[in-house]
Amino acid sequence: MKGSLMKTSTVLALALSMGAVDAAAQTGSQTGSLSRDDVRAVSPALEHYATDKLANGLWKRPGLSARDRSIVTIAAVITRNQGILLPEQLNLALDNGVKPAEISEIVTHLAFYVGWGNAMAATAITKEVFAARGVGAEQLPKAAVDFLPLDEKAEADRAARVAQGTGPASPGLVRDTTDVLFRDLWLRPDLAPRDRSLVTVSALISAGQVEQIPYHLNRAMDNGLTRAEASEVISHLAYYAGWPNAFSAAPVARAVFEKRSAN
Amino acid sequence: MKGSLMKTSTVLALALSMGAVDAAAQTGSQTGSLSRDDVRAVSPALEHYATDKLANGLWKRPGLSARDRSIVTIAAVITRNQGILLPEQLNLALDNGVKPAEISEIVTHLAFYVGWGNAMAATAITKEVFAARGVGAEQLPKAAVDFLPLDEKAEADRAARVAQGTGPASPGLVRDTTDVLFRDLWLRPDLAPRDRSLVTVSALISAGQVEQIPYHLNRAMDNGLTRAEASEVISHLAYYAGWPNAFSAAPVARAVFEKRSAN
Amino acid sequence: MKGSLMKTSTVLALALSMGAVDAAAQTGSQTGSLSRDDVRAVSPALEHYATDKLANGLWKRPGLSARDRSIVTIAAVITRNQGILLPEQLNLALDNGVKPAEISEIVTHLAFYVGWGNAMAATAITKEVFAARGVGAEQLPKAAVDFLPLDEKAEADRAARVAQGTGPASPGLVRDTTDVLFRDLWLRPDLAPRDRSLVTVSALISAGQVEQIPYHLNRAMDNGLTRAEASEVISHLAYYAGWPNAFSAAPVARAVFEKRSAN
Repeated sequence: MKGSLMKTSTVLALALSMGAVDAAAQTGSQTGSLSRDDVRAVSPALEHYATDKLANGLWKRPGLSARDRSIVTIAAVITRNQGILLPEQLNLALDNGVKPAEISEIVTHLAFYVGWGNAMAATAITKEVFAARGVGAEQLPKAAVDFLPLDEKAEADRAARVAQGTGPASPGLVRDTTDVLFRDLWLRPDLAPRDRSLVTVSALISAGQVEQIPYHLNRAMDNGLTRAEASEVISHLAYYAGWPNAFSAAPVARAVFEKRSAN
Repeated sequence: MKGSLMKTSTVLALALSMGAVDAAAQTGSQTGSLSRDDVRAVSPALEHYATDKLANGLWKRPGLSARDRSIVTIAAVITRNQGILLPEQLNLALDNGVKPAEISEIVTHLAFYVGWGNAMAATAITKEVFAARGVGAEQLPKAAVDFLPLDEKAEADRAARVAQGTGPASPGLVRDTTDVLFRDLWLRPDLAPRDRSLVTVSALISAGQVEQIPYHLNRAMDNGLTRAEASEVISHLAYYAGWPNAFSAAPVARAVFEKRSAN
Repeated sequence: MKGSLMKTSTVLALALSMGAVDAAAQTGSQTGSLSRDDVRAVSPALEHYATDKLANGLWKRPGLSARDRSIVTIAAVITRNQGILLPEQLNLALDNGVKPAEISEIVTHLAFYVGWGNAMAATAITKEVFAARGVGAEQLPKAAVDFLPLDEKAEADRAARVAQGTGPASPGLVRDTTDVLFRDLWLRPDLAPRDRSLVTVSALISAGQVEQIPYHLNRAMDNGLTRAEASEVISHLAYYAGWPNAFSAAPVARAVFEKRSAN
């Protein structure tokens, strides 16, 4: 009896670690800092869509875990400077299993991928959410950490390609890309490379920057993001970054998928 | 005498309904939530341009009605998250004949075309403007409405084209585009299809998303937007979305115009 | 003795006027309206990067003067609507030798290059900074000024090219580009053409609007911006507008550099 009980808890623990708790996914009101009555005072339809299409629809769809949806949404909201959504989405992310340390790294990562000012605006709001939930310094990654191991071969290839294409335009950019991003930021251990890639791809789609999608989508898939997940990232972002950005990303993603299938 | 008097009032009513009251177009201060003195304290030139180029220039030009200019401007301001302009522009829109029900639909429409967070930020401000002007629930479209008739043939063509191009990248996006946008949002009756297209095209230009302009500009013109109006939409948006976005849109619009002329 | 003392002060004055005081460049905290403790409460790493990579790194690098870095940063911050950074950056710019009259012109210039709403949001913040530092009306350019001389030949070429490419799409845009921008805004004397170009190029890169970069980067270099400075503008903007925008700008800049070298 006891043996089977333990087995059940092991299975549950395993299931939890695999994100199979999505049946209990937290979905939020999706109206950010506004009450549902506030939204209804402008548009009963918009309030209806918030429940029907977002909270009870998109957020409960299988293709992507609630935790991943939270990571993608936070990346979109910070990229697009949509402060009104951020407090609710940060709370939702924490409820959906994104750790404070991971949120700390996401904000830091986006400082470089969407600009310093967006990260500072996000920091001002995150600070309040962390304080309200009692998230203290001991839960945050330190400034100095032991880096993840670097794939020297892949990094050398990347650096060579950038040196060739970007070097003649801006040697400083080439140097910083190596020193600040790929031999520093990307090696910080408190956000898994797959999740860091998910943040990056989400930011690129949300900003309409399609040119860098191929490199980063390939990297994301090399880091473990599945094709089905990537597909659903695009349709999730239609809601938070607007349909046109999703439509601009789709053909680029398609080309990446097809090239990987052909190999 | 009485007969001719009645005739005059009929003509006036007709003229009003055709937007011919543009001679009395409301133009606003164009300084948003700032006073003219506020602007002058930073740049007397900027304050001068607000009057000379915007209020007394752009907004009084013939090519586009004041009501259309208000729709275009609100779309630009929400797309670019320029909250500081929104209260004045919403009041101006109401003064220029845009109905509260239409504003409600514009905000709802843009939730999908520029992202949920932009719509929520706009909702927070619109709620205040509606409250100050006594706009109540009875003036707003309900969540559930009788849809406009659907052109099944055109919609089938659109869906087939999207399924082919976008389907391999994101089946979820294809499905939502049909279910949420073209068989739901676009069929809501309280914003005329021509005006809904005007909002969409304005949002695309304001966001620099040129790729989707051909489809939506053609749709706008099929829905009744004239070439002269579309031309003036672009030059109007230069002021609110910045010159570079207008310049990026122009060659795309030109190709659309030329292709339609050739047919 | 006295002679040599005077000489020293003359040299110093000359050095100051040439921007050679960059050794004493003001770098700011780079955390905008947030304290360092605020940032540390979310991400000790981000706070570390602010000092290590920005204040003590980027801002002290030789390739671009601190005054130019301030102009570039203010353009990026206004373009991307990052109000949280603006008060500190405006103060930093004034400390780094950007004159109030120049800031006034930068805000005005960006009204047309990134949109009216961004300029109004910037005006609201600049007004407070000017008031706190006692900048009065006598330090600001008047609305009506004596224009710089116009290169009629170059302007005729530009106008002809735009009329041909943009005219068929939007005659209004062509007319306004001539009347409002190139025969008015660009001729205002309180921001040197080279600096006005620097603002424009920075805004284009920050907004991801690569299509207009070739014309304006060439114009900037014709106006005196060196290739080394332009290179460093790109790497500076990686931090404030996000890496993807810098990477999208680099190949376009490279093509401009190569074409100018070939001539």
